[in-house]
Amino acid sequence: MARRTPLTFYFDFISPYAYLAFPEVLRLCEAHERELVPVPVVFGAMLSHHGHLGPAEIPSKRVYTFKHVLRLAHDRGRALIPPAGHPFNSLLALRMCLAESDIEERIRLVGKIFTATWGLDGADVTEPSVLEHLASEIGLDGPNLRTLATSPGIKSALRDTTAEAIAAGAFGVPSMVVDGELFWGVDSVPHIDRFLQGRDPIDQAAMERWQQIPMLVQRKRP
Amino acid sequence: MARRTPLTFYFDFISPYAYLAFPEVLRLCEAHERELVPVPVVFGAMLSHHGHLGPAEIPSKRVYTFKHVLRLAHDRGRALIPPAGHPFNSLLALRMCLAESDIEERIRLVGKIFTATWGLDGADVTEPSVLEHLASEIGLDGPNLRTLATSPGIKSALRDTTAEAIAAGAFGVPSMVVDGELFWGVDSVPHIDRFLQGRDPIDQAAMERWQQIPMLVQRKRP
Repeated sequence: MARRTPLTFYFDFISPYAYLAFPEVLRLCEAHERELVPVPVVFGAMLSHHGHLGPAEIPSKRVYTFKHVLRLAHDRGRALIPPAGHPFNSLLALRMCLAESDIEERIRLVGKIFTATWGLDGADVTEPSVLEHLASEIGLDGPNLRTLATSPGIKSALRDTTAEAIAAGAFGVPSMVVDGELFWGVDSVPHIDRFLQGRDPIDQAAMERWQQIPMLVQRKRP
Repeated sequence: MARRTPLTFYFDFISPYAYLAFPEVLRLCEAHERELVPVPVVFGAMLSHHGHLGPAEIPSKRVYTFKHVLRLAHDRGRALIPPAGHPFNSLLALRMCLAESDIEERIRLVGKIFTATWGLDGADVTEPSVLEHLASEIGLDGPNLRTLATSPGIKSALRDTTAEAIAAGAFGVPSMVVDGELFWGVDSVPHIDRFLQGRDPIDQAAMERWQQIPMLVQRKRP
């Protein structure tokens, strides 16, 4: 039997949707015997690439998004608390995760930082010493990861993962890619489940028809 | 007992999410004995107001959105076929709906145009004669609605409804407003249901805490 390909989870800690999705995608991968590979990306850079705005950049959408994720967290029985600020600078946290090349360990670190950010009161994950401490708490070499994270190699690797996600069709986070198919957002988890069961209702011929329909109006880009 | 306030459904025919949401919101209103008031708005003008891009304006998101709505339609056992082009100019269709001041009749017209656009093969709802015919098919005075729709009063009224939706906090379509609370998207229908049952989990004190958290980073606007 051919080895099953992994599922890539493109994420940024600034997304509460990614926080909600992470354990669900982890469970999904376990159920389908797929390796989960969490890949940090810079959501802001993704938005800049597309000339797009994030939910936090439109005042009314920022307020709505807070309510929306609170409702989704409630639906799932998950904790969700406001971080010290939002959006915040997640670069060091993302780079530390990328610096951890052992995927099992990276999964634990990603889970730890997501929970510290959105699930527990107080941790300021923009603070290097906090990140070092979180890594050390789960038995990783926090100071070493922090040092690695500031190296040019890791900085450039984070730009590369962001470019790779965009090339795979990503325009937001979380984005999940498996067997060449991209899914976006926590609400897509049941659709990924169905896809992995071989029951995705997308029909290739229909999609080709959809992709060929012309854009009949175009706004002036803002 | 105080009269229950209506639920306002802000929509644009160019949104397949609005097409999916419309009958669900209609059923919700029936179940909760609320009047449904469908209010046409111009999605493009809403985007321009916020300096935002629609899903069809980012190539990879356009493709994903087509797949996403096909999956959502399949989940709901609803037909969804590609329109002749997308995005398309929905202005006349929106204005004709606004010109119909009888709300019961407007609901029927909105449903008719949504189905013609997204649920049946072939109708080009950018074509005035098609719209006139659709209105006439359900017993309305199609030619009269078409004439009214081109009047300065209705043109200005459509700008006003769009401004009203934005003032209510809308940044996309469909947006549903009931008892002062705004909900966005077809996925919010179960949350509106819970809200109308008095079980919305949003806690005012918590929301005030969330709204007060500072934005710690800001991108240069694209």
